Amino acid sequence: MRIVIIGGGGMLGRTLARALGRRGMIDGQAISHMARADIVGPAPVEAPFPVSTQRTDITDRAAVDALLAGGADIIYHLAAIVSGQAEAEFDLGMQINLMGSINVFEAARALGTTPKLIFTSSIATYGGEIPEMIEDWTALNPQTSYGAQKAAAEMLLTDYSRKGFLDGRGLRLPTISIRPGQPNKAASGFMSSIFREPLQGREAICPVGPDYPHWYLSPRRCIENLIIAAEVPAEALGQNRCFALPGRTHLIGDMVEAMRRVAGDAPVALIRWEPDRSIQNIVLGWKARFNPAKALALGFVRDDSFEDNIRFFLEDDIER
Amino acid sequence: MRIVIIGGGGMLGRTLARALGRRGMIDGQAISHMARADIVGPAPVEAPFPVSTQRTDITDRAAVDALLAGGADIIYHLAAIVSGQAEAEFDLGMQINLMGSINVFEAARALGTTPKLIFTSSIATYGGEIPEMIEDWTALNPQTSYGAQKAAAEMLLTDYSRKGFLDGRGLRLPTISIRPGQPNKAASGFMSSIFREPLQGREAICPVGPDYPHWYLSPRRCIENLIIAAEVPAEALGQNRCFALPGRTHLIGDMVEAMRRVAGDAPVALIRWEPDRSIQNIVLGWKARFNPAKALALGFVRDDSFEDNIRFFLEDDIER
Repeated sequence: MRIVIIGGGGMLGRTLARALGRRGMIDGQAISHMARADIVGPAPVEAPFPVSTQRTDITDRAAVDALLAGGADIIYHLAAIVSGQAEAEFDLGMQINLMGSINVFEAARALGTTPKLIFTSSIATYGGEIPEMIEDWTALNPQTSYGAQKAAAEMLLTDYSRKGFLDGRGLRLPTISIRPGQPNKAASGFMSSIFREPLQGREAICPVGPDYPHWYLSPRRCIENLIIAAEVPAEALGQNRCFALPGRTHLIGDMVEAMRRVAGDAPVALIRWEPDRSIQNIVLGWKARFNPAKALALGFVRDDSFEDNIRFFLEDDIER
Repeated sequence: MRIVIIGGGGMLGRTLARALGRRGMIDGQAISHMARADIVGPAPVEAPFPVSTQRTDITDRAAVDALLAGGADIIYHLAAIVSGQAEAEFDLGMQINLMGSINVFEAARALGTTPKLIFTSSIATYGGEIPEMIEDWTALNPQTSYGAQKAAAEMLLTDYSRKGFLDGRGLRLPTISIRPGQPNKAASGFMSSIFREPLQGREAICPVGPDYPHWYLSPRRCIENLIIAAEVPAEALGQNRCFALPGRTHLIGDMVEAMRRVAGDAPVALIRWEPDRSIQNIVLGWKARFNPAKALALGFVRDDSFEDNIRFFLEDDIER
């Protein structure tokens, strides 16, 4: 199996590459090669198969063609300009999130082999005038440019799949928490940093109140879902190739208490509660309650409680 | 008010231009100029204000900029590759329906005046695994490339509006019946031709059975709605600028009986019932039952019964 990870240098791409390196297999077959591409060259990972890395700008169609020139059985398209940046730099978001995605879809189509294409969308595609409980048939109604660009790409992914150009699987990711590493420009950044930083002895700012509800998934379960996405049979996916991943709804205050139960009072005391209107303007438009029936029926997974998210961070990601 | 109609040579564009010519006014103000553009130069219309016509290929961004160079208060973007053709010529559909729409949105944005932009989307954006009754919050789930391209453009229209780049109003048109003039390549063509041709003494073929349900609007009410779309205040539209227009659900057999009541037995006898799998494969995926609550609340209109559609054709469009 030849795997290509586009956006391979980001947190999910890096963690996915490490997981695939450990497994050596996907969908019951040995991985023969993995290509990792990003706008900056991704850091190396250990694997029992050859791994190539390269710098690829997905707004350059020829560069995407070159990346796929050796063939690809499974393409992970994880590359994106995140919500805060796509809001501030509209044209860049359009170029990467929509036009870049079309380049990836077209390059996959040009292979003529109907490769599996796993695309990471987001719950930022929901918002506004829709019911509070999101079902699989609830309208996408994004309230950010990031969400709109992802939603537009989703429509195309399903259509390219229906046409047989590729075998698409679009996952609307919950907010990933606790994200390891450095903060990015996502408006949702605090939903990780208020745990990640205190668990490592540093202060962090919480820009919303303790009663803010949101929909979460741990990095560990997210990576498991990215692998499941490549293994679900095409015929099980039905007519819409894009759907919300499982997650859990938590209030910020409850998550903080989960951290207290797992890690004690000290990290909790490092959270500074400072309301921030510009972040609230984005995140208060996001939906918090989902019934991910399709994803659960397909075998996708979630955390049992936010204690899981805290423990997985301590096991997988804490910098020692 | 300076009006630009893109796709001005098509049936709706021509009829809209004639209607605006008769009114001379829109949104309480006199129309000072109307530009009509299409891939082929539109035929002239009578109007009490200057009307220019030009050939514009919307896949050429510079051409769209040139079209809007004199400024525009209201832009109608009606240009599209219809469903049957977009299915057969995928790349052409992508170029016109999605990339061409983005060119129009970008050119409108470049004006810097936040013009009103009325975009004709379609009920072909619905389909597949969604409830049978379509509400305003039901997911777009297109089963054709035409529908997917329209749905992707809708996501952008709402986002460009939220950003203040333009003041978008996206209308999901019911199937328009009875369309006058020549058949086009839309898979829905028979839903007009089985009335239009017999009412003019000619045979027509019905490729589905009498129990096929679908969602309809007459050309007369559609044009009224296109004008209402330019007059609805922005603040009434809410966060999602795209919504289903009102219509009526009818079974083909009931529509044929409506024709019999208005025009007698002779035209009914000219319908030949010949099932066609390739057309059924497209149209059986379309949804037939809608609750267009948002559009009705905003003042958009529909026919009282299919007898209206028959009578409006005889009054407005029959070739004598």
